[in-house]
Amino acid sequence: MRDISFFFNPRSVAIVGASPMHGKLSHAIMDNLKETGYQGSVYPVNPHYKSVNGITCYQSITHIKEDVDIAIVCVPASAVLDALDDIVRKGVMGAIIVSAGFKEVGGEGAVLEQRIHKIAGDTGIRIIGPNCLGIFDNISKLDTFFILRERIKRPPVGGLSILSQSGSFAGTIMDTLAAEGLGVAKIVNYGNRVDVGESDCLEYLAADKLTKVVGLYMESVDDGRRFLEAAKRCANEKPVFAIKVGRHGAGASAARSHTGAIAGRYEIYRAAFKKAGIIEVRSYSEFLDACRALGKQRRANGKRVLIITDGGGMGASIADACEDMGLHVAEPSDMLKQTITPKLPLFCTLANPIDLTGSVADDDYVMVLKEGLKGYDLAIVMVLWGPPGLTDRLVAMLADASRELDKPIIICSPGGEYTRRKNKMFEEAGLPVFSSPEEAARAARLLVNDKMINDKMIK
Amino acid sequence: MRDISFFFNPRSVAIVGASPMHGKLSHAIMDNLKETGYQGSVYPVNPHYKSVNGITCYQSITHIKEDVDIAIVCVPASAVLDALDDIVRKGVMGAIIVSAGFKEVGGEGAVLEQRIHKIAGDTGIRIIGPNCLGIFDNISKLDTFFILRERIKRPPVGGLSILSQSGSFAGTIMDTLAAEGLGVAKIVNYGNRVDVGESDCLEYLAADKLTKVVGLYMESVDDGRRFLEAAKRCANEKPVFAIKVGRHGAGASAARSHTGAIAGRYEIYRAAFKKAGIIEVRSYSEFLDACRALGKQRRANGKRVLIITDGGGMGASIADACEDMGLHVAEPSDMLKQTITPKLPLFCTLANPIDLTGSVADDDYVMVLKEGLKGYDLAIVMVLWGPPGLTDRLVAMLADASRELDKPIIICSPGGEYTRRKNKMFEEAGLPVFSSPEEAARAARLLVNDKMINDKMIK
Repeated sequence: MRDISFFFNPRSVAIVGASPMHGKLSHAIMDNLKETGYQGSVYPVNPHYKSVNGITCYQSITHIKEDVDIAIVCVPASAVLDALDDIVRKGVMGAIIVSAGFKEVGGEGAVLEQRIHKIAGDTGIRIIGPNCLGIFDNISKLDTFFILRERIKRPPVGGLSILSQSGSFAGTIMDTLAAEGLGVAKIVNYGNRVDVGESDCLEYLAADKLTKVVGLYMESVDDGRRFLEAAKRCANEKPVFAIKVGRHGAGASAARSHTGAIAGRYEIYRAAFKKAGIIEVRSYSEFLDACRALGKQRRANGKRVLIITDGGGMGASIADACEDMGLHVAEPSDMLKQTITPKLPLFCTLANPIDLTGSVADDDYVMVLKEGLKGYDLAIVMVLWGPPGLTDRLVAMLADASRELDKPIIICSPGGEYTRRKNKMFEEAGLPVFSSPEEAARAARLLVNDKMINDKMIK
Repeated sequence: MRDISFFFNPRSVAIVGASPMHGKLSHAIMDNLKETGYQGSVYPVNPHYKSVNGITCYQSITHIKEDVDIAIVCVPASAVLDALDDIVRKGVMGAIIVSAGFKEVGGEGAVLEQRIHKIAGDTGIRIIGPNCLGIFDNISKLDTFFILRERIKRPPVGGLSILSQSGSFAGTIMDTLAAEGLGVAKIVNYGNRVDVGESDCLEYLAADKLTKVVGLYMESVDDGRRFLEAAKRCANEKPVFAIKVGRHGAGASAARSHTGAIAGRYEIYRAAFKKAGIIEVRSYSEFLDACRALGKQRRANGKRVLIITDGGGMGASIADACEDMGLHVAEPSDMLKQTITPKLPLFCTLANPIDLTGSVADDDYVMVLKEGLKGYDLAIVMVLWGPPGLTDRLVAMLADASRELDKPIIICSPGGEYTRRKNKMFEEAGLPVFSSPEEAARAARLLVNDKMINDKMIK
């Protein structure tokens, strides 16, 4: 278990295969290091150029006089071994090989990859990749994601870190988190995983103070035992959620093809996740729900969920979805009913959901939430903005209530333009917002301990 | 089975309980009739006013000299029976009672509702409501939805018609369809359903030429046998999809409270949907998927789905989701592989998904789609916009291909700002777009006949 933390905060990086030509991966990486704001030294390396983007370019990495912490390798697959030789000789701690053309294409590529693996083992250099995007670190601003900036945006700073075997997943989730304004600490894509993989990264993130929540995208695992230990350690420190892709025949074969890894039987992963204390998610959308819910709310101490709504039919959909997911949609106690009835508009329904109807005003939501949560573990507050008694004040009022109360609150607010503007306000106020009953219920489920959901007895 | 078509294209409407005061339901309705663009005659009725919004106001509906096709009743529950007496005497064909305070509140309200029911039976007047939003007709521009226009927008004209017992559902879906630019013909919310219900509406929509697809939100059914017949007739003419809300204890009780109806056992509904040829959807989100998919694409003749992607990991998630839903993610034939291999960039993976990788160009998608669909029933085309070889031309090229081919095509394009702008272009070009692998797979499933999915033998 050798340290990989230097990868995330290098004092200097060399770009092996640097090029002044637009369209080259290395060019995109040099651009991104600059645009994202990396402050360490950057050394282009390429025998064909004297300078790249106005920076002195070296014939070989061994010609650089200063220390180089990490090398980013962008040369064609056939030239990677030679490049690695030089990199090792220079005494570089780690290399990120972004180039493709290895195990994922089979044949000679697979042989090349074996030799890279041996170099890592023999020399002790740590290697991320090949066939990967590498690292996006939102603190050090190291950014080796070579995708077009104008198409794939960078997210704001936050406590969410993501590990992904798949590059397309890493890029897509990064861009989506950016659009949703969800804060990220680090994203790592290790592709073919010749050396550094999920276990190293989980160990690193377990200790990383800036990472509050970890999301993991897996197609396969290299060392099951080590993964289990690393995952346990990390999940002990902070919430870890994971998706296993390639569950069935077809998906499994697709996952194998594109990173050259073997995707094992799904049930084994589920058991491992459970044992390690990892929260399992089953889809890309649920992965996003987890980013939002676990990134913005504490976890719940039980599965009794209170639903508050101002629209009966839509509220019933939340109740359906919560029950589907094993949450307990318990009836409100008589005491709660007696407390809130005199304070509410006529015609309110005091079941679960509590339906405040179209006569609702801002204060009703907050009063019912504060009184109601005393007897529940978490709340889903559905706000349909039709009723004229609702104003923008409601957003801050619910955010304040959420800070005051020590139980998680989830907002569910489906609708069009007006609603979506209010949802941005909810998000900016720190509340997780979902635009369908099922997403909200799924998010609630993610905040509740699996054991509680599976244990039917405590219902 | 008496005709209800006059409700949707009345030559004249009376607003019983009209008021010049902002905040009153009747005021919102008069505003909306004007803003939405209703061209028939509007007669305010209220003994307290000489005119409302500059229009002559009548002491009683019986004082109006001209014929009145429908009356919209906005008086308090306790005054509804008297109002109905006058309305019947005037010879009005139908009344929409938007007022609340009937069966949904129990006691005296339930007694009142019984008496309304009797009036409908005795006199033959057709009644929509009480406790409802009534009708939004995008052709005649009759719009009795009394919700604030600045908060709940009206959708563009199109072939989708929606029937909903729940008002909050009807309002929310209308606003969402407006924001998504999905075209609507009619939306009906019948609330407590004292007379007109889903069966009448389904019969009407079966014959309505402007309605191409019907979405149905149900909490309960009043007359199972009649519903089954009407649903069958409608589903024979055009796709009908439906959600049953209140499936579990909690949701069922919520649904009962807010419209006063009894929600029966879920399994009975499922069996009825199946028998009637209704496509069952299980969540609000899936209802929206159905609006998009069935509103924009033909149905598939089988369950063999081809997945084309430019990102292996994300493509694997679609394959997972398709398999989960019973679709057949069949491997491409050797012939297909031989045909397309020479025309594709190096390193493409020719499995299902076909992964065109980051080296993809616009033409690759179209070529693979046209060749590939020969051996499949439908296609999900995932476009991740990272690769520099993809341009805006791709949108029109795929839309053209979709028009040429006689099989349905679904676009899946998850991501942030750039992607979302392109998704708007896809939608405008007539293609259904989904922003997660699971939504795309769910939409594909909705296009495939249930029988094919359930019949494992043909896999």
